[in-house]
Amino acid sequence: MRLIAFEHEGRPALGARLGDEVVALADVVPGLPADILSAFAALNLPEGASALAGRLEGAPRRPMAGLKLLPPIPRPGKVICIGLNYALHAKEGGNAIPDYPAVFMRGPTSLSAHGQPLVRPKVSDKFDFEAELVIVIGKRARHLTEADALSCVAGYTIMNEGSVRDYQRKGAQWTMGKNFESTGGIGPEIVTPDEIPQGPNALRITSRLNGETMQDSNTSDMIFSVPRILAILSEAMTLEPGDVIATGTPSGVGYARKPPVFMKPGDTMEVEIEGLGMLSNPIVAEAA
Amino acid sequence: MRLIAFEHEGRPALGARLGDEVVALADVVPGLPADILSAFAALNLPEGASALAGRLEGAPRRPMAGLKLLPPIPRPGKVICIGLNYALHAKEGGNAIPDYPAVFMRGPTSLSAHGQPLVRPKVSDKFDFEAELVIVIGKRARHLTEADALSCVAGYTIMNEGSVRDYQRKGAQWTMGKNFESTGGIGPEIVTPDEIPQGPNALRITSRLNGETMQDSNTSDMIFSVPRILAILSEAMTLEPGDVIATGTPSGVGYARKPPVFMKPGDTMEVEIEGLGMLSNPIVAEAA
Repeated sequence: MRLIAFEHEGRPALGARLGDEVVALADVVPGLPADILSAFAALNLPEGASALAGRLEGAPRRPMAGLKLLPPIPRPGKVICIGLNYALHAKEGGNAIPDYPAVFMRGPTSLSAHGQPLVRPKVSDKFDFEAELVIVIGKRARHLTEADALSCVAGYTIMNEGSVRDYQRKGAQWTMGKNFESTGGIGPEIVTPDEIPQGPNALRITSRLNGETMQDSNTSDMIFSVPRILAILSEAMTLEPGDVIATGTPSGVGYARKPPVFMKPGDTMEVEIEGLGMLSNPIVAEAA
Repeated sequence: MRLIAFEHEGRPALGARLGDEVVALADVVPGLPADILSAFAALNLPEGASALAGRLEGAPRRPMAGLKLLPPIPRPGKVICIGLNYALHAKEGGNAIPDYPAVFMRGPTSLSAHGQPLVRPKVSDKFDFEAELVIVIGKRARHLTEADALSCVAGYTIMNEGSVRDYQRKGAQWTMGKNFESTGGIGPEIVTPDEIPQGPNALRITSRLNGETMQDSNTSDMIFSVPRILAILSEAMTLEPGDVIATGTPSGVGYARKPPVFMKPGDTMEVEIEGLGMLSNPIVAEAA
């Protein structure tokens, strides 16, 4: 199943995409909470996916065309990001291969939906792209082992974890460069695990700037696999439905290129992951 | 005015504390949204404080005793933290005085209300305290100048920004050590700016472990003042109602003491800030 969030009468709503049509989940799940995080938890993913799929048959559909997509989880409780999780990317930035992940967070104000603009801020021309596989949590989880970790995963989506490189390095922590307004593309949709039988660590991941390939790797090259990331994070914190975890970017990012390549107004950046679809965002300048 | 959040029929509710009694804001503000972040935004603080104060007279009150307090904002959109913001604290950790703040984030699962336990995790005995002044945002704001920055501030509260030191330093970023479950005390209440006419950068700040003073400083010693922090953060991101910003801790933290001092089960940790009251939390061991 492929789940989206879209704007309906000024509020976020969840839907299931079937080709070029969408079923609003509120139309088929009785008593679905209005609050989107509560609604997402009520779906009880991943187990709930098959029951939900059964409800979609014969349900009223609306065309995808014309819907305003939102980030698949519009306001996650946590947006957790893993840095330096591909060996060649660590190397291209002059970093050692980490033996424990670099973890940071983004706020919801840093996110943009599929098709919506990513905003290059006024104060920097060092706006870089990062293609990433994103884990979406479906169930509360703590102290996961690698063996049971995937039991809490509702599905996967895609991120362009846009980074303002000079601000990323202004202070002792990366947070400022990772939190400029509307710099992180996320979406287009949450793909449930049954749709990627090969699992999350066997997916080709590519990014393209104006059609030219910038990154081309496979999630099998992660230093910390998806189950390992979930075990490490949940040693410390409870993962909650709707939390999203960006799992790091492969080599080929803009700042490490010679000469460097950055996203600028007028560009289009695409990130594609095998089985998950394609995230596309135009780049615009911040209003003066 | 002094605002609290408390549990009412299983849901978070906002209240105004008047001595040892509380007025539930839903009883006096017609049409107050049920969602607590929306409700907090609807109060339009700081300007709305005087209108709200006028509604409290003659309103039904309930005793504070017996209320289950929640973090004053139970699930902030962003919990932003400033590191190394007092010169002596930077020095005690062997760090240079920063010329740009170290910024990181905590998730809502890391917070505990006043009076609720802080949980020392099973995996570490390096659970340290950090007394901090917290800014609570009342209005959406971006690109603030230092001169106008305080216009978005709903009020202030207190944090014990509990830190698991070995996990803080396991990776390239501090996030893991700052996000263990229920390790950050916050509260007891949001104090509106009119109650601290001297402003946020002239307040004595102290912490006590089992009654013994551990930190004793003044918010005037911040390297980056409250207005400067707001200007720096809002250069990058929109601040939203209910966002909270912990402004760094003064010297005297446990890991830098000789010998080191850490919080352990059975301890009580108090943080007091002039005009804002006192935050107290018992320390407990994580369940086996």
